[in-house]
Amino acid sequence: MNESLKVTEFDVVFEAKGTAVGRMRNKVDLTWVKRGNDSETFSLATDEGVFHGGENTAPPPLAYFGAALVGCLMTQIRAFSKRMQIPIRDVKVNAKLQWKGRQIGRNPYETQPKGFSVDVDIDSDASEGDLLRLVDAAKKGCFVEQTLMQSNRIQHRLKREGGWTSL
Amino acid sequence: MNESLKVTEFDVVFEAKGTAVGRMRNKVDLTWVKRGNDSETFSLATDEGVFHGGENTAPPPLAYFGAALVGCLMTQIRAFSKRMQIPIRDVKVNAKLQWKGRQIGRNPYETQPKGFSVDVDIDSDASEGDLLRLVDAAKKGCFVEQTLMQSNRIQHRLKREGGWTSL
Repeated sequence: MNESLKVTEFDVVFEAKGTAVGRMRNKVDLTWVKRGNDSETFSLATDEGVFHGGENTAPPPLAYFGAALVGCLMTQIRAFSKRMQIPIRDVKVNAKLQWKGRQIGRNPYETQPKGFSVDVDIDSDASEGDLLRLVDAAKKGCFVEQTLMQSNRIQHRLKREGGWTSL
Repeated sequence: MNESLKVTEFDVVFEAKGTAVGRMRNKVDLTWVKRGNDSETFSLATDEGVFHGGENTAPPPLAYFGAALVGCLMTQIRAFSKRMQIPIRDVKVNAKLQWKGRQIGRNPYETQPKGFSVDVDIDSDASEGDLLRLVDAAKKGCFVEQTLMQSNRIQHRLKREGGWTSL
């Protein structure tokens, strides 16, 4: 078999444990579950500003969301630059993330995304065509971006005495 | 007009600036752009492990993604608990986030989401019905979850001399 056409598939799995530790502060431990009982855990925390009832001890969840999207794309641009032999000296990514909320009276508000734009500034002698190929590969290799581009079902369960209720 | 039926709409806007600062480390500054020239900036960094060419100086982008999803839902459960008058003593959220990658030969791999599940454990004397209403409201109020549940278009531009090329 031609080694260059061999198809490899792999899973990437994270397990998150969130606990409420302040007025609005959440501690979230994220374990990257790797093959062969190997794993690595990262501890992050979110909070809200005083206006939203928090104590501003950590960035809000949407800041983490933005870091995930931008960090993911930048990582793949650099990783794939080597693999595709399209050398780059530097990369900057600016993004704008917009959502909207809608509230009736004092009811809990409902939210929806409004728009996401990503501007990529690459310092390189490569042709525009090569750079467009590189960014396109990075988009396809960016787990966060591929997740946002499709409609995902998120399964929720609520713990009750004696079991779990699916929402 | 009945004040309790008044509809309010609001925007939430983040601007992200990502710079490449190490082998794979990215510094991402996230500015929450608020009304009236008010804004707040949060600085985060992502990195990769040595296996992926990084130096492991910061969590990987997918850890931030998980913190965003879990932190967002937990925040709204606590915020809406007060607003809906469904008292809770504590909340824990465990989530599992799965993606898969597919690679042909040594080409850049392509990614897709595989599944997301979220288990909510609330310590409360409220009825199951009230808790289900609370979690449902939190889902609708969670910007991250509402984003994941729909297919989003992300607009990309590549900077070139004299302008921008849209991808």
